Amino acid sequence: MSQLRQDPIQRRWVIIATNRSERPRDLKTVAQFENGGPCPFCPGNERETPGEIIAWRHPGTQPNQRGWEVRVVPNRYPALQIEGELERCAQGIYDTVSGIGAHEAIIETPEHDLTMSDYSVEHLAKVITAYRERIQDLYRDHRFRYVLVFKNYGALAGASLKHSHSQLIATPVTPRLVSLELESARDYYGMKERCLFCDIIKQEMREEVRVVSRNEKFVAFCPFASRFPYETFIMPLKHSHDFTTLDEDGVRKLASLLKDVLFRLKVLHNDPPYNFVIHTSPNVETSPRRPGYWGTLPYDYHWHIEIIPRLQQIAGFEWGSGFYINGVEPEVAADKLRKSLG
Amino acid sequence: MSQLRQDPIQRRWVIIATNRSERPRDLKTVAQFENGGPCPFCPGNERETPGEIIAWRHPGTQPNQRGWEVRVVPNRYPALQIEGELERCAQGIYDTVSGIGAHEAIIETPEHDLTMSDYSVEHLAKVITAYRERIQDLYRDHRFRYVLVFKNYGALAGASLKHSHSQLIATPVTPRLVSLELESARDYYGMKERCLFCDIIKQEMREEVRVVSRNEKFVAFCPFASRFPYETFIMPLKHSHDFTTLDEDGVRKLASLLKDVLFRLKVLHNDPPYNFVIHTSPNVETSPRRPGYWGTLPYDYHWHIEIIPRLQQIAGFEWGSGFYINGVEPEVAADKLRKSLG
Repeated sequence: MSQLRQDPIQRRWVIIATNRSERPRDLKTVAQFENGGPCPFCPGNERETPGEIIAWRHPGTQPNQRGWEVRVVPNRYPALQIEGELERCAQGIYDTVSGIGAHEAIIETPEHDLTMSDYSVEHLAKVITAYRERIQDLYRDHRFRYVLVFKNYGALAGASLKHSHSQLIATPVTPRLVSLELESARDYYGMKERCLFCDIIKQEMREEVRVVSRNEKFVAFCPFASRFPYETFIMPLKHSHDFTTLDEDGVRKLASLLKDVLFRLKVLHNDPPYNFVIHTSPNVETSPRRPGYWGTLPYDYHWHIEIIPRLQQIAGFEWGSGFYINGVEPEVAADKLRKSLG
Repeated sequence: MSQLRQDPIQRRWVIIATNRSERPRDLKTVAQFENGGPCPFCPGNERETPGEIIAWRHPGTQPNQRGWEVRVVPNRYPALQIEGELERCAQGIYDTVSGIGAHEAIIETPEHDLTMSDYSVEHLAKVITAYRERIQDLYRDHRFRYVLVFKNYGALAGASLKHSHSQLIATPVTPRLVSLELESARDYYGMKERCLFCDIIKQEMREEVRVVSRNEKFVAFCPFASRFPYETFIMPLKHSHDFTTLDEDGVRKLASLLKDVLFRLKVLHNDPPYNFVIHTSPNVETSPRRPGYWGTLPYDYHWHIEIIPRLQQIAGFEWGSGFYINGVEPEVAADKLRKSLG
């Protein structure tokens, strides 16, 4: 069974997942990415995955058979397991939590060769709705503090299967980066009685130079301190700490802007590998409300999507320092993305 | 000119370095790594680099000519520039510091095809002495708060030249990961009046299962919460916050253990790409001593080297959460490294 371990020096959590070395690509080379047998995510191969959790299906079709548009299944090589009691232990100076969690794959389309920016806005809205419904469902499980939705596109971004999919991992701890963002938001609100993210959005809208694209409900911009060339954040214009409060129109508008940004990246950089992650509020029902963690509910947080094109290798400086060298000014990146569609 | 920018959400620093896109490999593919013209780090090509800062030379040889064993030069594509005034500015909600710093290459050997684990202990001791002397010299410059020494080995680890070299970057801010470690060390010392790292070393020496190798002055072990398979830390057994206090015997013992660990990795994983970084005390002369930063001088810190083999891609989950999935138990990794030499 997996185990969560906390490093007492850098205060980060690590999942020690011993069943994952059987995965299609772990510890192997990028070259093996597209070889191998039949695609487990293609229609007709539904029995190659664990049974579906939820699916958007054509009327009259049966679970785990053809006829789906979006399909969510447990990851065959889960980093964490869903069954079991949560146990928090000391091991000498170290802290551990049993490796309880959920690890799911969102199979975004039945078409093997489509990429996310190819989908219609309506179809992408279904994928985003799947994210929302899975987070909502998993937050009902009081063992879980966080659900991280993410996408690895392309072998260089860590994808082990080509067929377009996203993933989510539900964890019994809040990831360090999210905790850090919650702290920043809380400290800023404490000082100013304004949301940090709302203030950033206002400055970005005013200065315009880092804005890539926008619509009535969302803005996409290259962050002022971008870690990577062409890194792009999507944020809701209206304050909201919780991704799952998105209504149908919000989902559609988000789908529209996400498609737009991914398409710009694809055109500008010849379909580059990328990752994206959704940062949203932790599970307010299960997170501790002690001072120094986040003392109040995180209504001062502001959910967003971080899109990270993988155009360069990450080297020792970045790993060793937690800071980054970015060779492309965010203002230049945003300008090129703005102009990418002619 | 470069600029340091701080992200107000994740509180990390980024170097926006606009002159680096001319580098041999930036934004290009790994395949181009070993192509190209004459090696600028080979003897006879000394004029292909900026003039040397310091070198270990055979008697009677001239600077910037043949006859060196270890040679330190400014990076031709520096992320930060050495000349100029340090200026800290607000740009609306954001914080910036002018891109002042040093970026140097330590050319470790005149032999184009040697790798670090091939050197004699005596030769590697010269390389480590070069690290020590450069940190000491740069800490005399009161604009700098930190000097990060790191090595990228192999194209997949971010190296842009094959000829064996390390790098250092001196920065006017303390990198976030180092600040975080200083805080952990301070908090722990405040609670227990013992060094966090010394306690970790004691537990590792007692449990033995994660120890890879050791000698009279140093221990190498796979950390309990390893982020990556076969990640290995080297720590001095005797408490010391400052790498530059290493004496001649310490340098030699460190060289011996570093060579040993790198050789084990090479044998076990067929010469894998890797990064290593030295974490040591910030510049005590120039760092602020305010509460909440680190209120006292960091005598409770404990310098160490982090070695990170690059055996798998880092995917969205890791970027998005600041936590890691490691498919190889550190206990198993240490066991394999212990047995790697037969």
